[in-house]
Amino acid sequence: MKLLPLACAISALTLSAHALAWNFVLLDSDKPAQNQRITSEQLGVKLDKPFSITMRTLHGGRQEGVSLIDIDNGTMKLTLVPTRGMNVLHAQVGDARMGWDSPVKEVVNPAFIELNGRGGLGWLEGFNELVTRCGYEWVGHPGMDNGELLTLHGRAANIPASKVTVHIDEAPPYAIHVRGELQEQAFKKVDFTAQTELVTEPGTARFVLNDTLTNNGDYPKEYQALYHSNFSTPFLEEGARFAAAVKQVSPFNDKAKADLGDWQTYRAPTRDYDETVYNVVPYGDAKGDTLTVLHNKAGSLGVAVGFNVQQLPVFSLWKNTDTQGQGYVTGLEPGTSFSYNRRYQRPLNLVPTIEPKQQKHFSISYSLLADKPAVDKALKTIQTIQGERQTEVRQTPLVDLTKE
Amino acid sequence: MKLLPLACAISALTLSAHALAWNFVLLDSDKPAQNQRITSEQLGVKLDKPFSITMRTLHGGRQEGVSLIDIDNGTMKLTLVPTRGMNVLHAQVGDARMGWDSPVKEVVNPAFIELNGRGGLGWLEGFNELVTRCGYEWVGHPGMDNGELLTLHGRAANIPASKVTVHIDEAPPYAIHVRGELQEQAFKKVDFTAQTELVTEPGTARFVLNDTLTNNGDYPKEYQALYHSNFSTPFLEEGARFAAAVKQVSPFNDKAKADLGDWQTYRAPTRDYDETVYNVVPYGDAKGDTLTVLHNKAGSLGVAVGFNVQQLPVFSLWKNTDTQGQGYVTGLEPGTSFSYNRRYQRPLNLVPTIEPKQQKHFSISYSLLADKPAVDKALKTIQTIQGERQTEVRQTPLVDLTKE
Amino acid sequence: MKLLPLACAISALTLSAHALAWNFVLLDSDKPAQNQRITSEQLGVKLDKPFSITMRTLHGGRQEGVSLIDIDNGTMKLTLVPTRGMNVLHAQVGDARMGWDSPVKEVVNPAFIELNGRGGLGWLEGFNELVTRCGYEWVGHPGMDNGELLTLHGRAANIPASKVTVHIDEAPPYAIHVRGELQEQAFKKVDFTAQTELVTEPGTARFVLNDTLTNNGDYPKEYQALYHSNFSTPFLEEGARFAAAVKQVSPFNDKAKADLGDWQTYRAPTRDYDETVYNVVPYGDAKGDTLTVLHNKAGSLGVAVGFNVQQLPVFSLWKNTDTQGQGYVTGLEPGTSFSYNRRYQRPLNLVPTIEPKQQKHFSISYSLLADKPAVDKALKTIQTIQGERQTEVRQTPLVDLTKE
Repeated sequence: MKLLPLACAISALTLSAHALAWNFVLLDSDKPAQNQRITSEQLGVKLDKPFSITMRTLHGGRQEGVSLIDIDNGTMKLTLVPTRGMNVLHAQVGDARMGWDSPVKEVVNPAFIELNGRGGLGWLEGFNELVTRCGYEWVGHPGMDNGELLTLHGRAANIPASKVTVHIDEAPPYAIHVRGELQEQAFKKVDFTAQTELVTEPGTARFVLNDTLTNNGDYPKEYQALYHSNFSTPFLEEGARFAAAVKQVSPFNDKAKADLGDWQTYRAPTRDYDETVYNVVPYGDAKGDTLTVLHNKAGSLGVAVGFNVQQLPVFSLWKNTDTQGQGYVTGLEPGTSFSYNRRYQRPLNLVPTIEPKQQKHFSISYSLLADKPAVDKALKTIQTIQGERQTEVRQTPLVDLTKE
Repeated sequence: MKLLPLACAISALTLSAHALAWNFVLLDSDKPAQNQRITSEQLGVKLDKPFSITMRTLHGGRQEGVSLIDIDNGTMKLTLVPTRGMNVLHAQVGDARMGWDSPVKEVVNPAFIELNGRGGLGWLEGFNELVTRCGYEWVGHPGMDNGELLTLHGRAANIPASKVTVHIDEAPPYAIHVRGELQEQAFKKVDFTAQTELVTEPGTARFVLNDTLTNNGDYPKEYQALYHSNFSTPFLEEGARFAAAVKQVSPFNDKAKADLGDWQTYRAPTRDYDETVYNVVPYGDAKGDTLTVLHNKAGSLGVAVGFNVQQLPVFSLWKNTDTQGQGYVTGLEPGTSFSYNRRYQRPLNLVPTIEPKQQKHFSISYSLLADKPAVDKALKTIQTIQGERQTEVRQTPLVDLTKE
Repeated sequence: MKLLPLACAISALTLSAHALAWNFVLLDSDKPAQNQRITSEQLGVKLDKPFSITMRTLHGGRQEGVSLIDIDNGTMKLTLVPTRGMNVLHAQVGDARMGWDSPVKEVVNPAFIELNGRGGLGWLEGFNELVTRCGYEWVGHPGMDNGELLTLHGRAANIPASKVTVHIDEAPPYAIHVRGELQEQAFKKVDFTAQTELVTEPGTARFVLNDTLTNNGDYPKEYQALYHSNFSTPFLEEGARFAAAVKQVSPFNDKAKADLGDWQTYRAPTRDYDETVYNVVPYGDAKGDTLTVLHNKAGSLGVAVGFNVQQLPVFSLWKNTDTQGQGYVTGLEPGTSFSYNRRYQRPLNLVPTIEPKQQKHFSISYSLLADKPAVDKALKTIQTIQGERQTEVRQTPLVDLTKE
């Protein structure tokens, strides 16, 4: 590690286990979030496309005091939200924007959100990210379970990160790692820590989330995780398609039954469509790795979301192809669980347990597929994973939502 | 527009459509609230009674981080609360204070309020203003509607303003405009923006609120608005009177029936009185403009609240003449709606709809009536509006509150 | 009072009524919490063990913006949390730590807590202090009372202090007083102020809380207070004992019945033990003063909690001897009331009333018993208070919790 003559305040960290890295603390208990900037030039790294990491703070409205981290890796620009669960607000490569246009325009500070409001739908007052972390005590629709109102999709997206650091490998490709810790703790109830990490290599159109959930407690605990990954134009459009290696697909509810035949294609923005959701059980390869793809009608632009079915065994496809103003968006959502209330998922064996001191790892990759060859290559990968294996198209929902 | 050599940080804005103005940004996404001051002297405006606009921040308790804007127009001193819906905290002309003494002494940051607490009455933990904005998704008493708990009087008063600007006309009378934007947004639920404005002319004892509610969404939405305008001594006292051009008046509930005969006069602070409320349908003039007046017993001091019945067709008179410590206060409350829960107001046609991209304007004027001639003149205006038209005194409430 | 040439910002206060003192404002409506430090050296006080009072602010996570006050009285180090009801986070004398290890590691800003969440158990998301103030509108378990959900243990612990001052007696023993005001106010509901004070004398292993609750309102109000005082190792261990002058002891609920015979001794950390609670009615001496002691098995180390039964007539012994990770802790909890929901305590006459403008004082002392003679002396005091008076061991709970 080198000594760094940076003007901004920088603290040295212990080295990463596997590689020499430049290490910076952006936020800690005794270090407030401040405007600061780290650049490849400062580090003496000479690149055709220099990279930078910048921290800033938003003001006014319900975004007062929200911290943002902008990463420009030379090719892709990413914005993370430490104040909101280290969510990925949006990413951009040239004209291609990963993310969507929510009616929620502010990046809302959780201090101003009552998750228990609106009958447990308070979460909707802040939902506008490309990747919104859901979990870790529960995910899914609001409702009572064990005598407690579980609010929509859990707390993770509304937990401010308690320690945020940046680590840049000292050797090519100079991978940039941004880490933030989420503490989900309540006496007698839960003692989870989620160590989140986003990794991106300079010059690429790709990033990876590497999260580690730890049960610090002395008792086994139920947990759930879901990565609500949301895309709109230019990927989503009339005739856009979703592809995955699918073991089983089923409609989330009665409404989704009607469109089951077209579950892999998308409508144009459609008035009064609201949403349909399909529950997917994906196949993985020998290691459990799998890939899902959303691409435009022409197959010339897409995004690939990769994960491992041993970590995240199920997947929700959320098709919210309502009007642009209402939110024209689709969610590719790998998870431990579907989006039913937790009480419905126990009988499906989708409420796993984390043992005391156990760690659960979740890795999800997000790649831009910038042209037809890239889209085709990804689709080919999916075909290879599927191989000769059958897809069960189940006509009825896995859960009878009319039953308590 | 002139270049301004001010020491405080000032940003130029685009000019108002209709007039040259000096323009200042007090708060924006990249500009935190800071102590700052704008004065007529700085602007080179020579006035017998100079004006100033000052921004400051409160600390400690539940008011930590609350911004205030003090306007001294030379005659009237006003305080606005950007952090609380651009509410008007109080106004003062000489000894005459518009406002009241709530048990809530702090100017409470919405971050510390659970509107869903106290069975939906959490709003009461911050209620202490001269003008508290109620709306815009709903107003009224807490209760279930469409399966959701609607909290008392909606969210507007607890939405921090997201962009706050000051505009001062460059020509006499150098009207001062303070604008702040409120965003009331939740995915799938609501996409409202309220552009609020307070205008006051230097040297006058008057201010006007000009609010514009926009439905940014693609679907029609129900909305409600109510301007909870609250006065106490020296206007409110035993024998003080309320006057308006009244088409219909009715008791809000059974309790208010008993005092219906005296609905336009006030009691001294009265132990165990709690409150009575009267629902008023006012008459407007040919343009819909109407005026309401509260004046002291002698008729020598009063306040006039003016509005337009095409914008705000109904009016609640809230008579909370309990003890001083409990809050001796009356509310003059023009609105789209009364203070019943929204579910009770649909059958009354008091839950209007705002179309996609439609805007609704609400203008309310507040004037001090400093002496008997001023009071008499305002009462005369009311008589003129009423003309020969009848007043229906309805003996029973419009709503049967015993029915769900 | 002397003029103070301190570098840090210091404001003069009016003198205490009874003594000359150096006075400092740490936080007020126009003074933000800032890093600052007051030392005996600065005051010109020459002591073998100098004292200091330091204010700092925490950042990141849900502790963003939380202020702490560290007092080092030369012998004991104490940390107070102005942002959380002036709670005492922990105290330390040499190796002896008063306090405990909660799963909640952050000092959580109330802005991030929904007390109404988790069915009224949101309080558990911030609970980790040595002394957590409970009250003052209610204490006890969550549940409906008078149509309102009362959340666990009231609001006091989650009210940020609105004015925080330090007063140091100018004469030996130079007692240090830290005061902070809590405002618990809601229109029509409650108008309480709690003036809290912590006093410690330099060089001692003791501190005292002197709180004054004022009903500013015009009507009598129910109130409750409970001082949730929490200890773990080195005081709590297998065979540790609790001692008090006891008029009556009874199990809180059916679960506590089984261990009633051993209610004064403690288990080692015990898997699946959860908690047992015993309701104690203590005897006081002629003035009402009483003492309770927790000491280790050897009787060589302990802590004494003293209070007055005219102020705080009952006491809860909370034995949460579950695993270390779950929270191995015992609570010594003098109060006006037990920990039942308020609706259960009215028939027990444990929901007292505070008259308009009346003040209620609560003084609780916390002393380290550093060796066997100190423990023995405290136990002797308890024996003296008990004298020949009988202890009723009631076999059944005072409340039938199966009844609504």
